[in-house]
Amino acid sequence: MTPSDREQQVLDRIERARRRRAEVKEERITLAHGAGGKATRTLVDALFLEAFRNPRLEPLGDAAELEIGCSRLALTTDSFVVTPLFFPGGDIGHLAVNGTVNDLAVSGARPLYLTAGFILEEGLPVADLVRITESMRAAADAAGITIVTGDTKVVQRGKGDGCYVNTAGIGVVEHAWRLGMDGVRPGDAVIVSGPIGDHGVTIMLARGDLGIEAENLVSDTAPLHDVVDALLLATPGVRIMRDATRGGVATVLNEIARAANVAVVVDEDAVPVRQEVRGAAELLGIDPLYVACEGRFVAVVDAAEADRAIDVLRDHPLGAHAAVIGRVAADPAGLVLLKTGFGGTRICDVLVGDPLPRIC
Amino acid sequence: MTPSDREQQVLDRIERARRRRAEVKEERITLAHGAGGKATRTLVDALFLEAFRNPRLEPLGDAAELEIGCSRLALTTDSFVVTPLFFPGGDIGHLAVNGTVNDLAVSGARPLYLTAGFILEEGLPVADLVRITESMRAAADAAGITIVTGDTKVVQRGKGDGCYVNTAGIGVVEHAWRLGMDGVRPGDAVIVSGPIGDHGVTIMLARGDLGIEAENLVSDTAPLHDVVDALLLATPGVRIMRDATRGGVATVLNEIARAANVAVVVDEDAVPVRQEVRGAAELLGIDPLYVACEGRFVAVVDAAEADRAIDVLRDHPLGAHAAVIGRVAADPAGLVLLKTGFGGTRICDVLVGDPLPRIC
Repeated sequence: MTPSDREQQVLDRIERARRRRAEVKEERITLAHGAGGKATRTLVDALFLEAFRNPRLEPLGDAAELEIGCSRLALTTDSFVVTPLFFPGGDIGHLAVNGTVNDLAVSGARPLYLTAGFILEEGLPVADLVRITESMRAAADAAGITIVTGDTKVVQRGKGDGCYVNTAGIGVVEHAWRLGMDGVRPGDAVIVSGPIGDHGVTIMLARGDLGIEAENLVSDTAPLHDVVDALLLATPGVRIMRDATRGGVATVLNEIARAANVAVVVDEDAVPVRQEVRGAAELLGIDPLYVACEGRFVAVVDAAEADRAIDVLRDHPLGAHAAVIGRVAADPAGLVLLKTGFGGTRICDVLVGDPLPRIC
Repeated sequence: MTPSDREQQVLDRIERARRRRAEVKEERITLAHGAGGKATRTLVDALFLEAFRNPRLEPLGDAAELEIGCSRLALTTDSFVVTPLFFPGGDIGHLAVNGTVNDLAVSGARPLYLTAGFILEEGLPVADLVRITESMRAAADAAGITIVTGDTKVVQRGKGDGCYVNTAGIGVVEHAWRLGMDGVRPGDAVIVSGPIGDHGVTIMLARGDLGIEAENLVSDTAPLHDVVDALLLATPGVRIMRDATRGGVATVLNEIARAANVAVVVDEDAVPVRQEVRGAAELLGIDPLYVACEGRFVAVVDAAEADRAIDVLRDHPLGAHAAVIGRVAADPAGLVLLKTGFGGTRICDVLVGDPLPRIC
C-alpha cells in the first residue's frame, strides 16, 4: 500500500510524535490517564517504566513472566473501579476475578492463585459486599483459580465510591512454545473471539446516561482460560493474544502494531458487533472498536492456521462468533489502518481522552 | 496463674463471645472494619473466609504458602490508603513496598517480585505521583525486590483521596524448617524487634490532629527481610513471626494466643516505647501496644534461644532495641495478659473501634 503525499505527511507526523521521549505534560492526573489510551501509555512510559525499569517489566505485557525454581510463572495485577458495582451480566466481583484470569490466560498461563484486596467506603451496605464476594467465589470456581490471601481497608465516606477491588494472579506457563510480539509476521491473520463492545455499552446503559435500554444486552465478562487453552492446543500458529479491555480492540491492535513494528489492516465490515452495541456507540459518538470487552480477546495467528483457529474458537461457547477481522502487513509499520465499508482507508489511532470512564 | 471467681466470669464471657459463629451485625461498613481489630476479624471470618474457604486461605497468615513446581512460594497482598500521603520518615510508596516485603519476610520467605496497582484521584499532582514512584523504587532496591507488573486506574475528583496503592508480592520460602502457630509452646519467649508505635504516632502528628510536634519522631517504615534472615540463620528456635502493623503489637499477640491456643503474658515495663510515643499515646487515650509499627515484628522463640535471638537482633540496625517482652503460658488459653508496673494484671484484648483510621 503506497500512501499519497498527504497521507505520508500524516504518517510522518504520527511517527515524530511517537519518537518523542514520553513526558507527562499535565500538572495533574486526569481521567484520561486511566483510560488505557495515549495518556495512560505516556504515564506508564514516563513515570512507572522510568522509575521501576527492569527487564521483566519492560515488555509491558498483560502479565510478567518469571522463572522461579523449575517453573515458568506469569504474574499480573489489576484494580477495578467500575461504576455501578452491579450491572447486567455481572458485577465488580466477576470483573475482578475474570480480568486477572484473562490476563494470565492470554499470556499462555494456566491460572492458579489469586489475591484479593478490598478498599471499602464507610457506609457500603454489607449486603453488597456479600454479593460481591459470592460473585468472586463463583467466578474463581468457574476459572479453576483459588483465592489464597487478601486484605481489607476502609476509607471515610466520600473518600471512595463503595468498593474498589484489586486482584493479583499467578499462573503457570505450560505451553512450551513462546508467545510474543517478535513472532508477529506480515501476512498473519488477526482474529477476535466474539462480538466486541458488549461490556462497555452495558455499563453505559446501566448508568442511565443514555436514557435508553437494551433488554438483551449484558456484559461479556467471562473467564477466557478454557477457550484460549483450546486454541493453543489446536494450533502452534498463535503468535500473540491480548484481551480487549480498556480502550477496546483498537487499542490492542495499536499495541501490537507498535510493539511488533508492523501494520495491522482491519476490514471494518468483518468486525463482529451486536446491533444494540452499534446503536449505542453511535449515540455516544464512539467507534465500537474502542469500547471495552471483558470476555473477548484478539489473536494474531499464522495465516495458514487461521481457518483451523476459527473452527476451534467457534466450537467453544465463548468463541461462537469468532472472526478474522484483518491481517498484518509490513507497512506502514506501527499503525492500524481501517478499511471502511465504503472502500476508504483511515488510520485507527489510540484515543487521547476518556469517553467511557471507569468501565472496569 | 489461677484466676479469681470474678476474673473467671470475665474469661468465660470472652470465651463464649469467641465461640459464637462470626456474624457481621452492622448493616453498613464502618471504619472499624478496616482497623485490624475485632470488627475486621469478624468481617474476614463471616464474609471472606465464608465465601472463599479453602485450605491455603484458612491459616489467615501474613502470606499464603503455595507449592508450585519444585518451589515453596509465599504470596501476599496489601492495599495502602494512608493519609497524609507523605509523612516524616516515609510516604505511601515506602509503606506499599515495605508492607508487602515484611509480610513475606515474617513468613520466612525471601521477597522476589512485586506488583503495583494504583488508584489515582483525578486532580492528584503529577509531581506527587513521581515522588511516590521514586520512593517505591528506592524501597524495592533496598529490599532486593523487583516490581514486574502494574496497573493504573483513575477515579473522579471526590471518589478517592489522592492515591491508593495495592501491592502483591511473591517470595520463595528458603528456610527448611517450618514456622507456624503449632510450634508455639508454653515457656517460649516473646520478643519485639524494637520500640513500638513510632509509625502510628508519626501519622497522627503529621495530620496535625494533636496540635503537638515531635521533631525527632519519624515512621519506622523499613524492610525487615534482612534482620529476619539474620535471626532465622542464627537460631532454629524461632516458632513464628508477625509484623505489628494495624492494631499494633497487642493485636498480633492476640492472634498468636488464639491461633496457638495459649496465653501470652506481657511485662508492660519490658515493652520498648519511645518517650514521644508514650506521651502522644497518652494524649490520644490509647495504649502504645495498639499503635501500628511498619518496621517492627514480634517473634515467639524457644526460651533457651531467647538470649541468642536478642544478641543477633541487637547486632542489626533494625533490631538495636529488641527486647523480650513476655512469655507464653498454657492458661488462660487464647488470652493476652498484661502485667502492669504496679503489680496488677489485666486482659489485653483486641480493640473494638478504630482509634487511628488510615494509618497504612
